[in-house]
Amino acid sequence: MKKLINDPADVVAEALRGVAAAHPELRVDHQHKIVYRGDAPRPGKVGLVSGGGSGHEPLHGGFVGLGMLDAACAGEVFTSPVPDQMLEATRNVDAGRGVLHIVKNYTGDVMNFEMAAELAAETGVEVTAVVTDDDVAVQDSLYTAGRRGVGVTVLLEKIAGAAAEAGRGLAEVADIARRVNANGRSMGVALTSCTVPAAGQPTFDLPADQMEIGIGIHGEPGRRRVPLAPAREIAEMLVEPILHDLDLTGGAGVVAFVNGMGGTPLLELYLMYNEVAQVLDKAGVSVVRSLVGPYITSLEMAGCSVTLLRVDDELLRLWDAPVRTPALRWGV
Amino acid sequence: MKKLINDPADVVAEALRGVAAAHPELRVDHQHKIVYRGDAPRPGKVGLVSGGGSGHEPLHGGFVGLGMLDAACAGEVFTSPVPDQMLEATRNVDAGRGVLHIVKNYTGDVMNFEMAAELAAETGVEVTAVVTDDDVAVQDSLYTAGRRGVGVTVLLEKIAGAAAEAGRGLAEVADIARRVNANGRSMGVALTSCTVPAAGQPTFDLPADQMEIGIGIHGEPGRRRVPLAPAREIAEMLVEPILHDLDLTGGAGVVAFVNGMGGTPLLELYLMYNEVAQVLDKAGVSVVRSLVGPYITSLEMAGCSVTLLRVDDELLRLWDAPVRTPALRWGV
Repeated sequence: MKKLINDPADVVAEALRGVAAAHPELRVDHQHKIVYRGDAPRPGKVGLVSGGGSGHEPLHGGFVGLGMLDAACAGEVFTSPVPDQMLEATRNVDAGRGVLHIVKNYTGDVMNFEMAAELAAETGVEVTAVVTDDDVAVQDSLYTAGRRGVGVTVLLEKIAGAAAEAGRGLAEVADIARRVNANGRSMGVALTSCTVPAAGQPTFDLPADQMEIGIGIHGEPGRRRVPLAPAREIAEMLVEPILHDLDLTGGAGVVAFVNGMGGTPLLELYLMYNEVAQVLDKAGVSVVRSLVGPYITSLEMAGCSVTLLRVDDELLRLWDAPVRTPALRWGV
Repeated sequence: MKKLINDPADVVAEALRGVAAAHPELRVDHQHKIVYRGDAPRPGKVGLVSGGGSGHEPLHGGFVGLGMLDAACAGEVFTSPVPDQMLEATRNVDAGRGVLHIVKNYTGDVMNFEMAAELAAETGVEVTAVVTDDDVAVQDSLYTAGRRGVGVTVLLEKIAGAAAEAGRGLAEVADIARRVNANGRSMGVALTSCTVPAAGQPTFDLPADQMEIGIGIHGEPGRRRVPLAPAREIAEMLVEPILHDLDLTGGAGVVAFVNGMGGTPLLELYLMYNEVAQVLDKAGVSVVRSLVGPYITSLEMAGCSVTLLRVDDELLRLWDAPVRTPALRWGV
């Protein structure tokens, strides 16, 4: 295992010390492993809390800031945070208008966020949870009942964050978040595995001439293993199942998001974006915004995922609204 | 070779098509492989042109935009662009106040930018070149007479770009650029090699239990191969040669930049930043700004580099000035 770490047991705690040192505008609770907006709780604003296993950076800690999350709870690598963390974050970002939990659909995350919401309710904090389940690859998986939550989570945190920043109420922010999840779909591919520091061994084996189509962000099996193929064919393998699942033709257009899994160079991600754009063009899908880069990763896994989100004018306005976080920033 | 590509010969051309599709605010000349600001040439502004071999993305194309570069010339992977590209870019961004060439110190880049500058001068465009040579690892190297230009290039493009955006003249922008180079130093480490698509094989071999201290961004040899070590010790191995080379104690402080080489997860880069910050703290170096992420990469190489830049109030104000590029963006 070749990693820039000290003791594998300390990776997340030490990385959070780096986040705190590099981003004085954020506040890090090292005991609870929570990254906060420096100015949380924001008076009059619905609070947004997300979180999940570490190893997917910049998700979620890199999305904390103006126009996006108020707090992110970091679990150990590929391991859900615990309810205590989520409860602590929820109470600390509540400004009296309630808190939205943004939860990727993995059994541990869903269960722990539910428990935290119950505990928060007992202390008088109103909580609504929205679960993302945008991965069209598989119906159920190793860690999931139902589809997995992947790339749409990034877009949802941005759009719901803008709605909260604009002063909308909890029910309305939650509605918008659900609309994003309902209108977004994703599919990924892995060229290599990744190594969880505490395990010290690759999560799975992938022969030198094969790739895994429909991979999960923890290396969970996808739809099938196939021989390596040109980017052109890979783009079709990822986009077609999405278009089969959700009609994206016509309408106001889509946000097209080509995400790097961590180990794939930006050069290849732009090349993939070109292929994805061509597949969409042939299918009559109009792209109105794009995002290219590693935003929801799987440690050093090589590969990418494609997320397509059908947007209307309102979602697009919220996407374009100012955001100031370590990993997404514009307009401020 | 596991890559998201089609024909290895088309990687750069196809990635530039992706850049054009994803960034409508930029203009891409596909024939000459140049990325331009959409609004270049900017009346009254000194033009900034950089470029170099591809495979280091987001450098340089990802740094084109308001407050940074006017144009970036893309060579093939790890291969200098040719003088024709640089001449074309120079002529197209000149608004009558001259053009600054920002050149990383590699023999091919320096020679080709010099030739382009001479040709541009013949057409009446005033050109000044600033060469970055901030890598303290080795005095000469495989592709270099003198030190290699690495991480400081990113900081220099930002700071000189802000000076040009503020309307300063060519001589002044060039002076500021030289000051950045003179006050910045870098050192890198590789945990793995990388594979140039056209070669199809790793550039070098690095045993599973070793790392290369002082690596170049094309996989050129560094100072020494040593057994894998904890991040804490690696931070010392990178920071101490920098502090030995340039006194950074006292003064107005430094910009501390922990750069990913491409294949190292952000989680590890933040962990490394924590270690670097501690080494600097012990040495009495005050960090006033930071940058953590993959900004000057070597394809999918695992590893990182540390760049420290001593700044005064003027350089710091220019660093903080608004920038709007695909890879660095704030204030707008």
